[in-house]
Amino acid sequence: MSNGEGRTYAAAGVHLDAAEETVERLKPHVARTARRGVLEGIGGFGGLFEMPTKGFKHPVLVSATDGVGTKLEIARQLNRHDTVGVDLVAMVVDDIVVSGAEPLFFLDYVAVGRLDPAHVEQVVAGIAAGCEEAGCALIGGETAEHPGVMPADQYDLVGFGVGVVDRGRMLGAHRVELGDDVVAMASTGLHSNGYSLARSIVADLDLDADHGLKVQTLGDALLRPTRIYTRPCLYLASRRAVHALCHVTGGGIEGNLGRVLPEGVGAVIDISTFTPPDVFGVLQREGRVADAEMWRTFNMGAGMLGIVPDGQEAVRLLGASGVDAWVCGAVDDSGGVRLLGLD
Amino acid sequence: MSNGEGRTYAAAGVHLDAAEETVERLKPHVARTARRGVLEGIGGFGGLFEMPTKGFKHPVLVSATDGVGTKLEIARQLNRHDTVGVDLVAMVVDDIVVSGAEPLFFLDYVAVGRLDPAHVEQVVAGIAAGCEEAGCALIGGETAEHPGVMPADQYDLVGFGVGVVDRGRMLGAHRVELGDDVVAMASTGLHSNGYSLARSIVADLDLDADHGLKVQTLGDALLRPTRIYTRPCLYLASRRAVHALCHVTGGGIEGNLGRVLPEGVGAVIDISTFTPPDVFGVLQREGRVADAEMWRTFNMGAGMLGIVPDGQEAVRLLGASGVDAWVCGAVDDSGGVRLLGLD
Repeated sequence: MSNGEGRTYAAAGVHLDAAEETVERLKPHVARTARRGVLEGIGGFGGLFEMPTKGFKHPVLVSATDGVGTKLEIARQLNRHDTVGVDLVAMVVDDIVVSGAEPLFFLDYVAVGRLDPAHVEQVVAGIAAGCEEAGCALIGGETAEHPGVMPADQYDLVGFGVGVVDRGRMLGAHRVELGDDVVAMASTGLHSNGYSLARSIVADLDLDADHGLKVQTLGDALLRPTRIYTRPCLYLASRRAVHALCHVTGGGIEGNLGRVLPEGVGAVIDISTFTPPDVFGVLQREGRVADAEMWRTFNMGAGMLGIVPDGQEAVRLLGASGVDAWVCGAVDDSGGVRLLGLD
Repeated sequence: MSNGEGRTYAAAGVHLDAAEETVERLKPHVARTARRGVLEGIGGFGGLFEMPTKGFKHPVLVSATDGVGTKLEIARQLNRHDTVGVDLVAMVVDDIVVSGAEPLFFLDYVAVGRLDPAHVEQVVAGIAAGCEEAGCALIGGETAEHPGVMPADQYDLVGFGVGVVDRGRMLGAHRVELGDDVVAMASTGLHSNGYSLARSIVADLDLDADHGLKVQTLGDALLRPTRIYTRPCLYLASRRAVHALCHVTGGGIEGNLGRVLPEGVGAVIDISTFTPPDVFGVLQREGRVADAEMWRTFNMGAGMLGIVPDGQEAVRLLGASGVDAWVCGAVDDSGGVRLLGLD
């Protein structure tokens, strides 16, 4: 239909046929995340979700948005795109669960330089896997082609999620008491934070070599998906075994734990209880990074902290739901967060 | 605290101080979008919103995500960033209102090459203005710095919104009847779609000249904010004067109207009733774009269509709520969307 001489949308670099193929490829991935509440698949203007009302006296919606940051560059270097979707979901749903909320649904935004349906399918397959793990439905999203603005093989991912919690059961600073224990939940590696520093360190290293990591390459270790703590945390909450949760993201423990401590209350964390995954040692050695810089940039082995009335009981319950955990500190009246063992 | 020789997060291009300054600058903008339901400002891990339950028998949450696309490049060229936030909100909330849902809250994601707090404040001021216009609260967001991946002055915006509608009052294809009228609601220009084509056309043109646009420069016309139709559409719905709504975005009328027509039902749209804003004429002339390509890429003067039981009554109600509208077509049994007057 277009004039042979005139400009067309396709010639400007936007491929509506590829967009249609992409939508078709994504359908089975979306379908396997279906759960109670989902009213329709993708395709409408908005995603529809029936609000659960039973059992809620004062339902509060908890929402979060996040990206994966420059971990995507590692994926691009290794040309493996099926796990960054798990990272994306983890970053969002574990910001939601810290309020004690159950994630209900998720939407994704994928920006690409040039739309390659197979590539987007890989990415969304990871997102769907993350949604299954967290128990939420993928109910919508947007794939945007930005020709001329992004290089053809570059992409960005953004996720949005919504959860629900009854107001009377919300977790947070208001529940924290002096004498509470702090438990650490083991991370799988860097998760999705600190990659700008990590990338500056590994820029000249061979990602296909192990650099002393023994069972994995440096690339594998850097691309390892973020652990999703949603189900274990909801289990703790259902047993009334947790007062507050701290998602250890950018800024490390020091940058995040204070966000769930009430005014005047502090915490001391004994870093000798941590066994950071080996990848942190490689990064510190190769980048000659100071200890303090490591701890305020990375999770150093614990991607989620729980402030709990009984540390041993929490460790037991977390172990039963498949997460290695340990008592790493205690709440005190110091008013600040102190890492014991760090100069 | 960092080792003078070792790598640091700041040296890797991530500026936590600028991030803190940004959060402070955004607070007043966030505050002016506050509405019933908001539980906290930004700063927590997740945004909190008390679910409205009164008056809802079967509340359905309607969510959408979108970006502004390459319209951002026009903003970058003109170095004016205070209106693209309005575009962002418009793209999202008007995907929500097509279900008849009232937008409740909004979250934004801003990715930047290098974090400039004043720039992000300009962008978020626009987002807040859009949220005020749509009646929803800005309750969270993320500003991500992607050094080395995006050029310093490049950025991307993604928005996410959630609304609510009672299941029994949802709008959509299930309400559409043969004999319904189609009304068109006037657009302000391109809104946020078709910019890859538009940019390919204007690449060699002077955006500071008027190119026959008389009262505005080409740059002003291309950057003009998207009209937000949320309140007028909710007003139509409250008067039971609308069966379905069609947000005219990428793909134009042909690409979108079919999404809200039931199986076997079609519509005929008389394009002679349209008076496209002058900017479309400039683009068509300079790009020698075929008519059909124009209509399947741009909104051509109507950013929202309503499928209504009484066209004249809908036009009157829309006029009363400040939107120019006209009867542009009718629903029929053709099974397809036909643009009358287009070869």
